[in-house]
Amino acid sequence: MFTINENYLSLPHNYLFAEIRQKVEDYKKTYPQIELIQLGIGDVTLPLVPAVVEAMKSAVEEMGRKETFKGYGGSQGYGFLRNVIAESDYRKRGCDISADEIFISDGAKSDISNLQEIFSVENKVAVCNPVYPVYTDINIMAGRAGQYDPRVNRWRNIIYMDCTKETNFLPEIPKRVPDMIYLCFPNNPTGAVMKKEELQEWVDYANQVGAIIFFDSAYEGYISEKNVPHTIYECEGAKMCAIEVRSFSKKAGFTGLRLGATVIPKEIRRKGVTLHSLWKRRQETKYNGTSYIVQKAGEATYTKEGRRQIAEQIKYYMRNAKKISTTLSTLGYTVVGGENSPYIWVKTPYHMKSWDFFTYLLENANVVGTSGSGFGAAGEGYFRLTGFGSEEDTKKALERISALPL
Amino acid sequence: MFTINENYLSLPHNYLFAEIRQKVEDYKKTYPQIELIQLGIGDVTLPLVPAVVEAMKSAVEEMGRKETFKGYGGSQGYGFLRNVIAESDYRKRGCDISADEIFISDGAKSDISNLQEIFSVENKVAVCNPVYPVYTDINIMAGRAGQYDPRVNRWRNIIYMDCTKETNFLPEIPKRVPDMIYLCFPNNPTGAVMKKEELQEWVDYANQVGAIIFFDSAYEGYISEKNVPHTIYECEGAKMCAIEVRSFSKKAGFTGLRLGATVIPKEIRRKGVTLHSLWKRRQETKYNGTSYIVQKAGEATYTKEGRRQIAEQIKYYMRNAKKISTTLSTLGYTVVGGENSPYIWVKTPYHMKSWDFFTYLLENANVVGTSGSGFGAAGEGYFRLTGFGSEEDTKKALERISALPL
Repeated sequence: MFTINENYLSLPHNYLFAEIRQKVEDYKKTYPQIELIQLGIGDVTLPLVPAVVEAMKSAVEEMGRKETFKGYGGSQGYGFLRNVIAESDYRKRGCDISADEIFISDGAKSDISNLQEIFSVENKVAVCNPVYPVYTDINIMAGRAGQYDPRVNRWRNIIYMDCTKETNFLPEIPKRVPDMIYLCFPNNPTGAVMKKEELQEWVDYANQVGAIIFFDSAYEGYISEKNVPHTIYECEGAKMCAIEVRSFSKKAGFTGLRLGATVIPKEIRRKGVTLHSLWKRRQETKYNGTSYIVQKAGEATYTKEGRRQIAEQIKYYMRNAKKISTTLSTLGYTVVGGENSPYIWVKTPYHMKSWDFFTYLLENANVVGTSGSGFGAAGEGYFRLTGFGSEEDTKKALERISALPL
Repeated sequence: MFTINENYLSLPHNYLFAEIRQKVEDYKKTYPQIELIQLGIGDVTLPLVPAVVEAMKSAVEEMGRKETFKGYGGSQGYGFLRNVIAESDYRKRGCDISADEIFISDGAKSDISNLQEIFSVENKVAVCNPVYPVYTDINIMAGRAGQYDPRVNRWRNIIYMDCTKETNFLPEIPKRVPDMIYLCFPNNPTGAVMKKEELQEWVDYANQVGAIIFFDSAYEGYISEKNVPHTIYECEGAKMCAIEVRSFSKKAGFTGLRLGATVIPKEIRRKGVTLHSLWKRRQETKYNGTSYIVQKAGEATYTKEGRRQIAEQIKYYMRNAKKISTTLSTLGYTVVGGENSPYIWVKTPYHMKSWDFFTYLLENANVVGTSGSGFGAAGEGYFRLTGFGSEEDTKKALERISALPL
């Protein structure tokens, strides 16, 4: 008789964003006439840029002609896309990453989730707290989290690195030594960034203790300050200890297209085998490659026109983020983020619990954000807003929040 | 210090089709002037049909306009596609499957590979032999296979159901009781099919012992005979014990587009939870949905024009398959398949080993097929050819094979 993976039974009932979606749907059912503004889930709102649209149209045409039709493209992705990423995102920054070390995928979420499979379930996992919930949920599913302690909203075997006001929203080297470290900077949900020296400390630490760093660079395109690294490979020694996961979702608005890329330097090895070869074997067996059309769309974001057009979109979202952060500060809220990231991390007023503030904003301003505690225990008392809405919606949401009696 | 998932170390060094690709590339390097004909990997060669191309062009346009742009689409897929699948592939055949029981994905390979995650690693796995190597490789990776026994080319904890000439290339109920049963009919690699009564026996058996059946219906579109079920849910009780994985790759030529769908009836449960809810949680956490454009392409295969056009393609491939099977039979080869499936399963002449015949055909006819032993021990002495080549290539390959001294 088959049995199930019981690790799933200890998971929070819903994935965070599915829970928010449910709450919003319930509210809409009760008050169908109310117009809600969604600044919760980190989804983009601007259409794909013309360079991407044109590239996809040609790709569709190619797929409709016998001479240019493409079947299976190989699980690692097409050379044209891996080459341009290696060149533009790495070698131009002085990082020695080759096209062969890059794996194209249907998105950063898939890669972040699947990468842990090539590691032993015995490894100790360290995550920031608050954290993008995927990093913890996938390790609960895999059996690395141990028992859940509801009193503190933490799993016993997970090493939490609290990122609070006291730590400037950055993680500190933990007391327990981790084997697998998840870092995401610019950070989701806080919008905090690490300077190069700060990230270098983590690379040095990982190399010292033999840990692997999963570096999630989904928000790299939003970096505006100079000394903030665009890739972990700007740090010396990172090729010995870091896997970097890239996303086209926020940088080029590909949330509905699905495209990501993962870098695994060939230097990282255990027991005589490289992580690169393990991941290659994983992908060849379980993944049949990313849609050709979407890979051509990704390539188009690197052309001169494509770059200019996506840069405009990022500016648009960052104007929204700036407006949110300035307005809320003026209203007296304590706010971080919004400088190198589309996320604004807001302290709830009057020590309100995160979910209470979620409900308060939903009911009184009809604005949907994300509860800080949904990102972990150290997110309690915080709230996340995003610059991904339209300019008009963002403006309207801020007017409504400004009109609140708080 | 991080450690790796050591199950990977016991895997065959390469995924079968990656190995063939390598052998072909090596040969091409040595003999660059020779024109090889590929009838090995099951990749399609005809371009996407006009209905699909048109649908994708409109979808691309939609993504380029603010009013119609689509961001995250939800991990389960759009209702428009799930509804048409439920209606056309199930309810019209009298199977009570609802749109809510269908999960859209980037391909059957991903789903087949990921579904095992929601099951305990203690479960005993049964596979046909020969078999699509993914079913075994993913379970080796997960730790369900036990030790490899090189003398017999089998893993100790895997239950192999040999499908040989003696069993009419169909599996028989195994002596050891399995918890997870992988079935693929029309079969890859043999092209064999199960009649409805035969599949019903497996459903009854699974319900009796509490096993789950993973039914891979990738080649459903190629069924030509009447009493061959198009879905396992035509069998009574299948909703209590079967997950069905569907593919658009072979049916509509989507190998380079990436689209699949998985059906998990809500009836199947353990420990008070449904497999449906576990898979939903897995997908919400680890998967961010399938490209909108590709889902629209999928929808187009169900329009009147789309159906007609993809039916033409299937006829084309099946004409090739028929030609291969007839020609080889006439030449004196023992051949099965090619009736309800694009695969032809050929007995190698003079008891040649599969890989020897692979090399023989490669070198003497410059035709690439797939070694039967690559699909498992019981595939030794067999060879797989496919009808997926072009008509001209298939004709030429058969002329070359006919000219061999064998």
